Amino acid sequence: LASGTFSEVRQVLNNLPGAEAAHLIESSPPREREILWQLLNQEQETEVLQYLGEEVRVELLRDLPTEELVELIEDLDTDDLADLLQELPEQVTSRVLAGLDAQNRERLEQVMNYPEDTAGGLMNTDVITVRPEITFSVVQRYLRRLGDIPKTTDNLLVVNRKNQFVGVLPLTRVLISDPGTSVREAMITDVEAIPATQDAHEVAKLFERLDLVTAPVVDDNGMLVGRITIDDVVDVIMEEAEHSLMGMAGLDEDEDTFGSVWHTVRRRALWLGINLLTALAASAVISLFEDTLEKVVALAVLMPIVASMGGIAGSQTLTLVIRAMALGQVQAGNTRYLLTKELAVGALNGLLWALVIGATAALWFDDPSLGVIIGCAMILNLVVAAGAGALIPMVMKRMGIDPALAGSVVLTTVTDIVGFMAFLGLATLLYANLVV
Amino acid sequence: LASGTFSEVRQVLNNLPGAEAAHLIESSPPREREILWQLLNQEQETEVLQYLGEEVRVELLRDLPTEELVELIEDLDTDDLADLLQELPEQVTSRVLAGLDAQNRERLEQVMNYPEDTAGGLMNTDVITVRPEITFSVVQRYLRRLGDIPKTTDNLLVVNRKNQFVGVLPLTRVLISDPGTSVREAMITDVEAIPATQDAHEVAKLFERLDLVTAPVVDDNGMLVGRITIDDVVDVIMEEAEHSLMGMAGLDEDEDTFGSVWHTVRRRALWLGINLLTALAASAVISLFEDTLEKVVALAVLMPIVASMGGIAGSQTLTLVIRAMALGQVQAGNTRYLLTKELAVGALNGLLWALVIGATAALWFDDPSLGVIIGCAMILNLVVAAGAGALIPMVMKRMGIDPALAGSVVLTTVTDIVGFMAFLGLATLLYANLVV
Repeated sequence: LASGTFSEVRQVLNNLPGAEAAHLIESSPPREREILWQLLNQEQETEVLQYLGEEVRVELLRDLPTEELVELIEDLDTDDLADLLQELPEQVTSRVLAGLDAQNRERLEQVMNYPEDTAGGLMNTDVITVRPEITFSVVQRYLRRLGDIPKTTDNLLVVNRKNQFVGVLPLTRVLISDPGTSVREAMITDVEAIPATQDAHEVAKLFERLDLVTAPVVDDNGMLVGRITIDDVVDVIMEEAEHSLMGMAGLDEDEDTFGSVWHTVRRRALWLGINLLTALAASAVISLFEDTLEKVVALAVLMPIVASMGGIAGSQTLTLVIRAMALGQVQAGNTRYLLTKELAVGALNGLLWALVIGATAALWFDDPSLGVIIGCAMILNLVVAAGAGALIPMVMKRMGIDPALAGSVVLTTVTDIVGFMAFLGLATLLYANLVV
Repeated sequence: LASGTFSEVRQVLNNLPGAEAAHLIESSPPREREILWQLLNQEQETEVLQYLGEEVRVELLRDLPTEELVELIEDLDTDDLADLLQELPEQVTSRVLAGLDAQNRERLEQVMNYPEDTAGGLMNTDVITVRPEITFSVVQRYLRRLGDIPKTTDNLLVVNRKNQFVGVLPLTRVLISDPGTSVREAMITDVEAIPATQDAHEVAKLFERLDLVTAPVVDDNGMLVGRITIDDVVDVIMEEAEHSLMGMAGLDEDEDTFGSVWHTVRRRALWLGINLLTALAASAVISLFEDTLEKVVALAVLMPIVASMGGIAGSQTLTLVIRAMALGQVQAGNTRYLLTKELAVGALNGLLWALVIGATAALWFDDPSLGVIIGCAMILNLVVAAGAGALIPMVMKRMGIDPALAGSVVLTTVTDIVGFMAFLGLATLLYANLVV
C-alpha cells in the first residue's frame, strides 16, 4: 500500500469484493483506514459498510454529512442499520430517520424497539408472507410478480388475516408439490416462532440445535414482525465466543486490534488497577509472616510455586464450568456431581504434584520439613482452587455478574491468598515448634 | 430423574425432540448416561445420535454389536458418519463399511478420503445436480419426481457431462422465472467452488464473509464431490472458539464436563506439570537473590506484585494478537505497527501503575528507595510483557506451534522471570550501594 500510487490503490480497492475490502480496512492502522475509506467510490462504500465491524463503522461514519450518510446506509439490512443508528449521536439518528422513506422508517423503528441483543434486535423485516387458503399455483404467480426473493429465504411464512403467525412453508415444498396443493395442506405448523424479546444467546442455541437457516419472529400477540437469518446468528455466536475469550483477559470483545494507543491504554488500565489491588491483598497476607520469612529465606524462594499451581488448576475448572454454563449443561441436578468431581480431581492432582514438589524442595534445600510443608500447602490449595473454580461462576451467575469477565480475577485472588496463607502459615507453625 | 420410575423417564425421553434428549444425556454423569441411553427406543437413538458430542457418541457406541451399530448409524449425515467411524476401532469400522449398501459405502469412502478438518471432511454428498442445457420446466419435473429435497438446500448445482462444477442455480430462481428459461441462462457462474483439501478454518471464514448457506466442494480436477452446509460450519466455528478458550487453560476442546475423575486427572496433570517446571524456573531466579532477601524481607512481600502485573498485561496483548491472527488481520504490513502500539501501551500503563505502586510501597515500608525499585521494575516488566505478548504468538505460528495452547505458559514464564529478576536485581544493586 505504502509504495503504490493512490490511483492504483483506488482501482484495486474498488474492484475487490466488499468483504475483502472491509477486511483490508479493518487490518490497517487508524490513519490508513481514513485514507482507504476516502478512496472508495460510493457503490463500493455501501458494499464495504455491510462487512465492517461495529466500532470501525461508527468511527468512519461519525463525521459524514447527514445526506451522504442517508444515501450510504439506506441499503443496509434493517438490523444492521438499527445497530448502527444506536451507536451514532442522537441528533444524527433523528436526521437520518427523517431522511428515509416511510416504509423503511417504519421497518427500522420496529427493529429499534427491541434491544440489540434480543431476537427483535437481530431480525430483518424482509419477510414474504402467504395466506393458508391459497394454492401453490397462486403462490408461484405471486413470487413471479415479486420478481425478487430476499437472500437466505428458505421458507415462506404463513399468516392469518390478523397477521398472526401460523406456520412455515418451505420453498422446496412449493417446488416439488402439485400446483393444486393448498398452503394449508403443505405448511409445517409445529414450528415455534421466536418471541421478539428472547435473548440472542437463546436464539443462537435454538438455531444450532435445530440446524435452522431462518426463523420467524413474533411479538407478544403472536403477530409476525420479522425473521432471523443464520448469518446474523453466526455473528452472535462469534461475538459470544470472543466475549468469553477476551473477557478472560479483561478485554472488551469489541477491542479494536489496531486502535489508537491512548484509547487502548485507558481501556486496559482499569483491569490492571483491579489486579494491582488483588496483588496488594496477596502481599498483605505475605507481610503477616515477615518474621518467619526472615528466618527461613527458602520460603520466599518457594512460595510463588504454590500460588501459581493453584491459579492454573483453578482456571482449568473455571474455564470448564463457564463453558458448560454457556452451553446450558449445568443444572440443579448435576451441580453436586460436577463439584464433587472437580474436588476429587483437585485432590488427586494435588497429591501427585505435592509428592513431586515436596521431594524437590526437600532435596534442594536439604530440609525434609520444608518438603512436608510445601506438599501439604499444595494439596490444600489445589482442592480450594477446584472448589473456587466451580463455585465462583455459579455464584456470580446467580448474582447477575458475568463470570467470563470477573471470574478469573476473583479466582486468582482466592488461590493467591490461600496459597500464601497455607504455605507460610504451616511453615510458621512448624518452624516455631522446631526452633523453640 | 432419580425420583421417577424407569418407565416414566423412558416415556418422557422418547418424546423429547432429539436435540433436547441429546442435551440431557450430555449433561448427565457417566453412569446416568448409560442408563438414559438404554431407555431410548431405536428410532429415538438414531435421532439423538445426530446431536451428541463426538466424545460422548463414541463412548456410547463403542460396545454395541456391529449389526446394531450399522442399523443405528446408517441414517447419519455422511460427514458425521465419517467422523464417527474414524473414532471407532479399526475392525469395527471395516465391519460397519461391509454392512452398508453400495451407494452409502461409496459416498462414505469419498468423505473419509479427506481429513476431518478439511472441506472434504465437512462435506455431505447429498447434492442435487442439473445440466446447463435443460429448461426450468424439466428441472421442476425432475424435482417433483425426486419428491424429497435434502434439508438446507438453497441451490441446485450445475455440472457438465464430466461432472465438473460449472455454477449454482438458486431454487428461488427456479420459482420466480419463466418455465422456458434454461439453466444456463439463469445460473450463477461467478461462484467459486471450495477445493476439498481446503482447511476447515478457511471454509468457515468464507461462509462468514459471504453469508453463505451452502457451498459446492470440488476435487483437484474440478469434479463436484459434495457440498458443505452452514450447520456444519457453525459447528466448526464453535469448536474453534472452544479451542481458543479451553486452550488458554491447557484444556482440550473436547474435554467432557461430566467425564470420569480418573480420566480428567490424567488429562490435566500434564499441564500442571509443565506449569510446575516454569514455576521452579522462577524460584531458581529468586534463589539467586537469597542474600538480598534475607536483608530486606519487604522484598519478599512485594515481589509477587511485579510478576503478577506483568502476567496480566502480557496476557491482554497475547489474547488480542491471537484473536487478530485467527481473524487473519495480522500481516507483514502491519506487524510493526501492532508491536509498536502494544509496547507504547505497555510503557504508558507501566508508568501509571509504577507511580501508584511506587508511592504505596514507599509509604508502606517507609522506604523511598523501595518505591523507586518497584516502580522501575514495574515499567520494565510491563514493556517486556507487551513485547512478549505480541511476539510469542507470531513466532510460535511460524514454528508451527499452536499459540492458543502454548502461548500463555511461555508468556507467564517470561513475565515471572523478568519480573523477579528486575525487581530483586535492582534491589540488590541499590541496597548493596546503600548498605556498604
